[in-house]
Amino acid sequence: MSQKDKHYILNVSCPDQIGVVSAVTGHLAGHACFVEESSDYGDPQTNRFFMRIRFRPTLAGFDADAFMDGFAPLRTRLGMQVDLFERTAKRRVVLMVSKLDHCLNDLLFRYRTGDIRMKIPAIISNHPDLRQLADWHDIPYHHIPVTPATKAEAEARIDAILEEAQADTIVLARYMQILSAGLAGKYHGRIINIHHSFLPGFKGARPYHRAHERGVKLIGATAHYVTADLDEGPIIEQQVERVEHFNSVNDMIAVGRDVECLTLARALRYHLEHRVFLNGNKTVVFRR
Amino acid sequence: MSQKDKHYILNVSCPDQIGVVSAVTGHLAGHACFVEESSDYGDPQTNRFFMRIRFRPTLAGFDADAFMDGFAPLRTRLGMQVDLFERTAKRRVVLMVSKLDHCLNDLLFRYRTGDIRMKIPAIISNHPDLRQLADWHDIPYHHIPVTPATKAEAEARIDAILEEAQADTIVLARYMQILSAGLAGKYHGRIINIHHSFLPGFKGARPYHRAHERGVKLIGATAHYVTADLDEGPIIEQQVERVEHFNSVNDMIAVGRDVECLTLARALRYHLEHRVFLNGNKTVVFRR
Amino acid sequence: MSQKDKHYILNVSCPDQIGVVSAVTGHLAGHACFVEESSDYGDPQTNRFFMRIRFRPTLAGFDADAFMDGFAPLRTRLGMQVDLFERTAKRRVVLMVSKLDHCLNDLLFRYRTGDIRMKIPAIISNHPDLRQLADWHDIPYHHIPVTPATKAEAEARIDAILEEAQADTIVLARYMQILSAGLAGKYHGRIINIHHSFLPGFKGARPYHRAHERGVKLIGATAHYVTADLDEGPIIEQQVERVEHFNSVNDMIAVGRDVECLTLARALRYHLEHRVFLNGNKTVVFRR
Amino acid sequence: MSQKDKHYILNVSCPDQIGVVSAVTGHLAGHACFVEESSDYGDPQTNRFFMRIRFRPTLAGFDADAFMDGFAPLRTRLGMQVDLFERTAKRRVVLMVSKLDHCLNDLLFRYRTGDIRMKIPAIISNHPDLRQLADWHDIPYHHIPVTPATKAEAEARIDAILEEAQADTIVLARYMQILSAGLAGKYHGRIINIHHSFLPGFKGARPYHRAHERGVKLIGATAHYVTADLDEGPIIEQQVERVEHFNSVNDMIAVGRDVECLTLARALRYHLEHRVFLNGNKTVVFRR
Repeated sequence: MSQKDKHYILNVSCPDQIGVVSAVTGHLAGHACFVEESSDYGDPQTNRFFMRIRFRPTLAGFDADAFMDGFAPLRTRLGMQVDLFERTAKRRVVLMVSKLDHCLNDLLFRYRTGDIRMKIPAIISNHPDLRQLADWHDIPYHHIPVTPATKAEAEARIDAILEEAQADTIVLARYMQILSAGLAGKYHGRIINIHHSFLPGFKGARPYHRAHERGVKLIGATAHYVTADLDEGPIIEQQVERVEHFNSVNDMIAVGRDVECLTLARALRYHLEHRVFLNGNKTVVFRR
Repeated sequence: MSQKDKHYILNVSCPDQIGVVSAVTGHLAGHACFVEESSDYGDPQTNRFFMRIRFRPTLAGFDADAFMDGFAPLRTRLGMQVDLFERTAKRRVVLMVSKLDHCLNDLLFRYRTGDIRMKIPAIISNHPDLRQLADWHDIPYHHIPVTPATKAEAEARIDAILEEAQADTIVLARYMQILSAGLAGKYHGRIINIHHSFLPGFKGARPYHRAHERGVKLIGATAHYVTADLDEGPIIEQQVERVEHFNSVNDMIAVGRDVECLTLARALRYHLEHRVFLNGNKTVVFRR
Repeated sequence: MSQKDKHYILNVSCPDQIGVVSAVTGHLAGHACFVEESSDYGDPQTNRFFMRIRFRPTLAGFDADAFMDGFAPLRTRLGMQVDLFERTAKRRVVLMVSKLDHCLNDLLFRYRTGDIRMKIPAIISNHPDLRQLADWHDIPYHHIPVTPATKAEAEARIDAILEEAQADTIVLARYMQILSAGLAGKYHGRIINIHHSFLPGFKGARPYHRAHERGVKLIGATAHYVTADLDEGPIIEQQVERVEHFNSVNDMIAVGRDVECLTLARALRYHLEHRVFLNGNKTVVFRR
Repeated sequence: MSQKDKHYILNVSCPDQIGVVSAVTGHLAGHACFVEESSDYGDPQTNRFFMRIRFRPTLAGFDADAFMDGFAPLRTRLGMQVDLFERTAKRRVVLMVSKLDHCLNDLLFRYRTGDIRMKIPAIISNHPDLRQLADWHDIPYHHIPVTPATKAEAEARIDAILEEAQADTIVLARYMQILSAGLAGKYHGRIINIHHSFLPGFKGARPYHRAHERGVKLIGATAHYVTADLDEGPIIEQQVERVEHFNSVNDMIAVGRDVECLTLARALRYHLEHRVFLNGNKTVVFRR
């Protein structure tokens, strides 16, 4: 594959101002790059500008390094942050699970069939239960029990595995353990959690039980980036499903499983396709 | 219209036990009544049973009083609560509003076209703004300003108007004032409020602003019965709509208007059609 | 487990008339059966009545045969059709697939985790591709190629496998072949197909391509019973998802996969829980 | 209001090629215009590029005419079509109705409250029924009966009213009459119809009756531009709502009313905000 058959994602953010789009797209045109898809957004409150461009070079001699070097003046003058990704490069995603397997199964199916393009160098769990599923997909399974007494040590082992796996992204697929602020900070903006409620409703534990008790008519799930502040991280995606008075807690849990899978899968795809920008404690998501 | 062309709604609730449905439907069959629609639910946690039956007598001589008197043994033996309503009888609904007119306009349209069958003997507001809309529909408009100093007096006037209007049901169509525990208690299970958030998220004031600040991906509305405990009353209906990062607070408010109208209209229809039962702090809603 | 710890589903249908519910529930009360959940519907157009009751006997000596024998007078007098099912009995479901694996994977996950309770005695495919997935679940995989020349012979083999598997229900999980009228008739009301469009839109082949060409804003999936009339069988469940102008056909296919899985899984669960009644070319679905 | 306090919408379309975004945004930057919101899309099948930009000039001396004249080279070189609109300018919308008033009422409410910004110089109907509603909003109401014999003459009168009203956009808010190819062609891309089904399902008359007969589980509405080919025009927006076996045709019609109102209002808002581009027989809709 020559350079001109490659597709790239260019992500840009900077203080909003006149001429940003023009400067970036002018640079692309100057390198004979064809824009296939672009999205941008300027937040009028934070005055921050975000842009995602998918493009392909039209010349065989396209030099990605030179292309990026050419942004130097813009980086300096406009305070611009610029990142370039090959579209087909697979990011390295480590999955962390507990005993519940619905999200894991869903993600592994999407991994196996290519529905979500990624590498999964490791699965980490505080329980041994889901090893068989990992084995069938030929993915190393690390059983790291966590108790209050061993939490620090366990997290050190987790950190080592993430390092060795060269983890780009971490998915808490119903991991049910709280990560320390240290680990959350180290992978800021790269750890995705699925919370089984429509946040900010029912933060914390046992949301379906509390939803049942409160008598809500819709239940939901929230995929968000993990921060040190539990259940308060930037929201990537949310979905809901209707329930009725006759639905038991177990019915809600069953309905919720499907909602959790879809919400997490969608959030992960957005993240891996570089569609998500952090904007303070919120996200900008250029959805498709 | 002879008795046999009438349709009735029969609402029953009692402790759940063997033979309840049989006893009630046996009584209907004994009076030659044809069941057009029935729904029931036994709550396994509270052990309370609820049933709603729509029926029509098939004999010209159907005597509603005698039919209800016949329930006396069941009332005694099974602790049964039984209510009978003529299906086409219009309930008396008083609307309470503030300055925002979208819910009022929506309800008046449904009233005018018969989409929701009801009488509206009065509209009460703490502002004069929406009088013209009431006038056009020939509905008396009562402007009762509310200030901290005059709150008790204002509520006494409201209560008098409700009495005079023989209000069966009260709808807070974005009324924006908190009713006293006294009034809420007097009309327990008959005051419906529309809250402009997906409860229990964003209880209290300015939910759209807080939803925008939190960066949620769905906003919603909640119709619930008013209790002394603010925003904690039994939920009748909830709906949501998707928003994205580019939606401003004003966008959310605009999207929210439609969601509020639909949610409130649906809840009111369920209520007026006797589809809603109180079940502790929850509702049983036999939707159609 | 003694008789009184069992739960049963009782399904009833008959011409609608006064006293049906009373007669059925009276019979239940007479046998000291506690109704846990009941739903009924009388179609005013066809004048046909449908009822589903979940109950548990409260006496150790409950005799299911005697209970059913007791319906004889009702069968005769009211033309009643009555069926009794043990709630936990697992029905035998044969899955038929082609090359696409998303629905199969989804159903096998729900089978493996008990989310949908069933036995899967066989998987039949006209291609060898999905054998590995069947193997991992220890389910016999029958590869039966179908060509125009061998169609009759292939279907005879399929029929033999269904017989041997004692198939109660057949699921066409993207099977992509049309069953003969003979086979469709033999398993009338027991073959569920997932069609990848929101019927009656885009009947026939390549619905996503045609949806893309037409520029619709929502795509969907339809689960229906198979009849001799292609894509015209009674609809059990439908769901949709939003698409936009920038979504390619492949995007639609990807979005559609999730919608197909959910729609088929939901329809199959309704069917296996005896929630679906045929009502001419329509269905009555007592959903939960 | 000086020029620099105005906001503009710039709509661009042309054959897709390298440098289009750069050229357009460069022109904006050259005139010191601040981009507030931009969206673009290149259709890989038709190779057509579409772009919508909302911007505000930052210099008091901004000259809109000179700004547009400056596009001349791009028009020539890139075959670019460019349109500029003042954001707050109200477009002139003529509503056409028959006897059903739900869509009319909904649009008039949004008009009255400014939820949709527009002028309504005339309402045209083939029936006298809705005059009172028009009167209350001080909008001229033209009753033009249509019969097979007088259709040509009636349409000539309609055309004259549209001319006199200087209609920019025409909304068939359940008009129930088919416009001639001549009128449809004259206002190509500017007549919006609401069809009460989820097209392409149930084209033609009485869709709710046919949906009921077919037993679908979702009903919907479609807002589309009118073309000479009935029910085949480019789709702008679609929405659906769930129905069940117990819903009568009248229930479906009632549910459908809300769906129709919302779908039409949303499509009209997109249109008036210049968010919709025609792309062959499809639309590009830059939604918010």
